[in-house]
Amino acid sequence: MKLTPLGDRVVLKQLEAEEVTKGGIILATAAQEKPQQAEVVAVGPGGVIDGKEVTMQVKEGQNVIYSKYAGTEVKLDGEEYIIVKQSDILAIVE
Amino acid sequence: MKLTPLGDRVVLKQLEAEEVTKGGIILATAAQEKPQQAEVVAVGPGGVIDGKEVTMQVKEGQNVIYSKYAGTEVKLDGEEYIIVKQSDILAIVE
Amino acid sequence: MKLTPLGDRVVLKQLEAEEVTKGGIILATAAQEKPQQAEVVAVGPGGVIDGKEVTMQVKEGQNVIYSKYAGTEVKLDGEEYIIVKQSDILAIVE
Amino acid sequence: MKLTPLGDRVVLKQLEAEEVTKGGIILATAAQEKPQQAEVVAVGPGGVIDGKEVTMQVKEGQNVIYSKYAGTEVKLDGEEYIIVKQSDILAIVE
Amino acid sequence: MKLTPLGDRVVLKQLEAEEVTKGGIILATAAQEKPQQAEVVAVGPGGVIDGKEVTMQVKEGQNVIYSKYAGTEVKLDGEEYIIVKQSDILAIVE
Amino acid sequence: MKLTPLGDRVVLKQLEAEEVTKGGIILATAAQEKPQQAEVVAVGPGGVIDGKEVTMQVKEGQNVIYSKYAGTEVKLDGEEYIIVKQSDILAIVE
Amino acid sequence: MKLTPLGDRVVLKQLEAEEVTKGGIILATAAQEKPQQAEVVAVGPGGVIDGKEVTMQVKEGQNVIYSKYAGTEVKLDGEEYIIVKQSDILAIVE
Repeated sequence: MKLTPLGDRVVLKQLEAEEVTKGGIILATAAQEKPQQAEVVAVGPGGVIDGKEVTMQVKEGQNVIYSKYAGTEVKLDGEEYIIVKQSDILAIVE
Repeated sequence: MKLTPLGDRVVLKQLEAEEVTKGGIILATAAQEKPQQAEVVAVGPGGVIDGKEVTMQVKEGQNVIYSKYAGTEVKLDGEEYIIVKQSDILAIVE
Repeated sequence: MKLTPLGDRVVLKQLEAEEVTKGGIILATAAQEKPQQAEVVAVGPGGVIDGKEVTMQVKEGQNVIYSKYAGTEVKLDGEEYIIVKQSDILAIVE
Repeated sequence: MKLTPLGDRVVLKQLEAEEVTKGGIILATAAQEKPQQAEVVAVGPGGVIDGKEVTMQVKEGQNVIYSKYAGTEVKLDGEEYIIVKQSDILAIVE
Repeated sequence: MKLTPLGDRVVLKQLEAEEVTKGGIILATAAQEKPQQAEVVAVGPGGVIDGKEVTMQVKEGQNVIYSKYAGTEVKLDGEEYIIVKQSDILAIVE
Repeated sequence: MKLTPLGDRVVLKQLEAEEVTKGGIILATAAQEKPQQAEVVAVGPGGVIDGKEVTMQVKEGQNVIYSKYAGTEVKLDGEEYIIVKQSDILAIVE
Repeated sequence: MKLTPLGDRVVLKQLEAEEVTKGGIILATAAQEKPQQAEVVAVGPGGVIDGKEVTMQVKEGQNVIYSKYAGTEVKLDGEEYIIVKQSDILAIVE
């Protein structure tokens, strides 16, 4: 079972809090907020979105930071994912 | 009796909670919220919508996840449907 | 006496609650809300609306579902009508 | 003394409540609301408005229905007028 | 000392309440509101404003009605002026 | 140390209240509000801003009136400045 | 470990309050607000963002002033960064 995002959407899998601390990025805000670092799990095809050509810049497996409050959470086969638009991804962590 | 969506609209039929649990996707939020997984029942023709060319990407019979709060619920011959814009569909579940 | 809608506007005549129940579509929400199924009574010419070419897709006599909260209600010769923009019409019922 | 509307604006003169009842259109809402039927008194030249070409579709002397809450009321030589944008005019009554 | 408006802005000088009553236009709303009739004192050059070509339609010395809540009030050499965008001017009074 | 504004931004230095009174422009609103007259200190290069070509119309040393609530205040070497977009400048005072 | 901003985003590192006081820019507002002066740490590639070509104007190592409330704070390897869009950068401090 697999999620195939439409248009400029990207499926993310949030990194575990522990991993994140280890990896070194946590949000500078309240500790109980979830870190917004996630792994790219699936990338939409891009194309003309709302009348504008969008080229996808992120790839599966990349570690990204995404915008707070963005995205929709879904659970598939017991795993939680977040679906965001590519424009809600701020930076790639390397 | 049949619903023919206009423009970039799509008619969805929500999956039963049981099916969804079986199928494996439920929303990560409060349990009493309806799952946002649905089957595509009818797809509008697309075309120029609000001055922008929209090509329809989803097909009848596909299983999709759609954006919370999106769409209008209607009942036809005792069945409930949701009419959304294609841009409110986030991903296809395969 | 006749209503001629301007631009992309459409004049609708709401179906009687009885007809709707018989016809089979009622809104899945509170029972006291009016059903949003209506008959198309008059269709504007379309054309360039707010800088965008709009082609009219609905025809007089069609049975349509329109968006809640959309439109303006008017009474003409004792009959009530609703004037909506075509983009507030979600689907045609056949 | 005369009002010459700019751009896509239209000067309307509201029909008296009596006339309206006689003419047959009243709003289906609260009785104390003013009917939104009015006569076209003056029509702006149209042209490029906010970067979009607007062609005027209404003519002096026509009886129209306009959108609630739209427009600015002015009094000229003891007469009240409403100035609306053409896009706030919903339909012509014939 | 002189105000030279930028872009599509227009400098207006409100007519005295007395003049207005004599001239015949007062707003149909609460009596304590200022009448929105004013004389055009200076007109910006127009040109490309926010990516759209704007041609100035009003001239110095014209008597105009402008949109309520629009504009910024300034005092220059003891005189009060209002600076509005041309699109906030509804009609010319002749 | 110098502020170089980006894009269509302009650095302003507010005139002292005394200067303003002498110069003759004060806002017609509450006396404790700061006058919105300022001197242009630095002008951005203009260019394509948010997809639209912007040509800078103001010059260093000009005395301008700018829109209330617009801009960001900064202090540099003990001097206070306001950075606004050119579109927040209403008029040049000459 | 490194942050690579997407599109028109820029990674900033806020200057220490002390540095800022020494450097001479502090915000003219409440003292407990953080100064909005920061160093550019990484610059996105620019390109077509939301259908509009954006050319990046800032460079790594530059000292900039950015718009209050803009941006997302992240912590990487114990350092705090702010990710903003280039349009939230107001001026370069030289």
